[in-house]
Amino acid sequence: MTAIAIATPGGPDVLRPITMDVPAPGPGQVLIRVAHAGVNRPDVVQRQGFYPPPPGASPIPGLEVAGHIVACGDDVGDAMRGAAVTALVNGGGYAEYCLAQADHCLPVPDGLSLAQAAAMPETLFTVWHNVFERAYACDGEVILIHGGTSGIGTMAVALARLFGLTSIVTCGSADKCARALELGADHAIDYKTADFVAEVARITGGRGVEVVLDMVAGDYVPRNLKCLGVDGRHVTIAVQGGLRAEINMAEVMMRRLTLTGSTLRARTNTFKALLAHEIHETVWPLVADGQLRPVMDVSFPLHDAAAAHTRMEQGSHVGKIVLDIG
Amino acid sequence: MTAIAIATPGGPDVLRPITMDVPAPGPGQVLIRVAHAGVNRPDVVQRQGFYPPPPGASPIPGLEVAGHIVACGDDVGDAMRGAAVTALVNGGGYAEYCLAQADHCLPVPDGLSLAQAAAMPETLFTVWHNVFERAYACDGEVILIHGGTSGIGTMAVALARLFGLTSIVTCGSADKCARALELGADHAIDYKTADFVAEVARITGGRGVEVVLDMVAGDYVPRNLKCLGVDGRHVTIAVQGGLRAEINMAEVMMRRLTLTGSTLRARTNTFKALLAHEIHETVWPLVADGQLRPVMDVSFPLHDAAAAHTRMEQGSHVGKIVLDIG
Repeated sequence: MTAIAIATPGGPDVLRPITMDVPAPGPGQVLIRVAHAGVNRPDVVQRQGFYPPPPGASPIPGLEVAGHIVACGDDVGDAMRGAAVTALVNGGGYAEYCLAQADHCLPVPDGLSLAQAAAMPETLFTVWHNVFERAYACDGEVILIHGGTSGIGTMAVALARLFGLTSIVTCGSADKCARALELGADHAIDYKTADFVAEVARITGGRGVEVVLDMVAGDYVPRNLKCLGVDGRHVTIAVQGGLRAEINMAEVMMRRLTLTGSTLRARTNTFKALLAHEIHETVWPLVADGQLRPVMDVSFPLHDAAAAHTRMEQGSHVGKIVLDIG
Repeated sequence: MTAIAIATPGGPDVLRPITMDVPAPGPGQVLIRVAHAGVNRPDVVQRQGFYPPPPGASPIPGLEVAGHIVACGDDVGDAMRGAAVTALVNGGGYAEYCLAQADHCLPVPDGLSLAQAAAMPETLFTVWHNVFERAYACDGEVILIHGGTSGIGTMAVALARLFGLTSIVTCGSADKCARALELGADHAIDYKTADFVAEVARITGGRGVEVVLDMVAGDYVPRNLKCLGVDGRHVTIAVQGGLRAEINMAEVMMRRLTLTGSTLRARTNTFKALLAHEIHETVWPLVADGQLRPVMDVSFPLHDAAAAHTRMEQGSHVGKIVLDIG
């Protein structure tokens, strides 16, 4: 089969098609003939050499795929064979065939294309766990979402809308703010022309937000904390703006703030299976009835994975970039 | 009645006896004839002018008292009159009489002296809420407690022992480490002669602790985070070492750390009543049967409150300092 390997850490052009054996499903696994694979920021960081695959994971990039199951591990049984699924995978998605844990798959309902399906697991699992299970967002609360037109940002806005949260997003241009509002954000702040701390205070009448979904870190963190009201929660899922943050511990203590965060890839298979089950029960019905769709940017053929990465790094995309494979 | 007022912000000598009217209990309140009042670090900070009483609170210092109820608000009824109680109060404890919310009182069981009783609410409520309700400490886990011989520290060690936690404390001398071990700490680190980060790693076999109870903040925070294992929780209850902390957000995200904190005095009466009820159900039986006792340092007569503050500021005390009043 054809897969995209990382020849050496570097720019997008280190992504090179190679030929390799189709992998065989082990215990608990299924083999998916990949129709589409989602492209995510961690793939870019992995390509740059800063996010090595965890032990046992494929060195091929790609954390989410959709397609049809063509083989099943001995203990899985054959009932899933032929099913159209989307799956969170621990690497190997940029390929014609990809292994997944059977219990990390979700069925593709009628009306959801395989390209749309491939664009969902990574952002959906990440946002669901961090916003609802780590930051305990509740209906009626207000969430500040940075990167409002990113794959993560658009998924967060969609889930906020479906689960009764008011969303405030930040974006890097007036055009992106307009797009974010079209896509369901309640408020959008152009961080290049306005101070988001002051804007959040204005929008919330000085009360602040209950939750910040942070993928910037660095010097955004003290500013994010100023946006949080009493008992506010700050959850970090990426550190694109730098690792170091200077925070005021009196502010944490006096306003009873909580800072936490997580990465998805490092979690155990058992955790991911429980999360997939939770999402199947709570979110997937909204996919099945058409209320939740990923925001699709553009797609590229598998052999143009480098162009997909270039587009993500240029930052002009809105929503999800996917690879068309089979 | 005699009470101790803060003449002006400053050193211990600004604490001056004054004569004032005995207050009358309002709705939901009782009047306590104070036998003893506990002395706490926030009293010192209030005296220095850095921790003003919240709106509506007495300007007289003192956050915990024990004594007998001598009058009850109209809606409280007379059933509590004459009872020996200890109470968390929102100020006014350094006085011959003090108002308390009726539902912030706990009965003084046989075998607990009124001086011991007065030494419990502030540290017990603070440690219980922060360690078990904010940091979700569970039996079998390991907790790092700074200031192991302080009032807070000795209460945290006692609760750790009673609720199945392993405690590691830091203290500022070999003598204090020895005292902390006598008082039930499982491990004690002299932070003046050893690097507590390295010692915690050694003691835990590199796994780290699940919980840090932090009253230092400042540059202790990044060191505390290095002591936390995966899914560790860091709870700040004071900022004696400075407000500003530089933390590594990648560390928070990759190890799924949680930082939070709280102050007790700012909470609503309703919150404190719920906390008192919880403590009555979970901890008070251990007081009633003699398993939990506060560690008592020395006591001073009310008119020597300045001497009590001097002792706390010198830092040579072990456990709780109380004022003898009536």
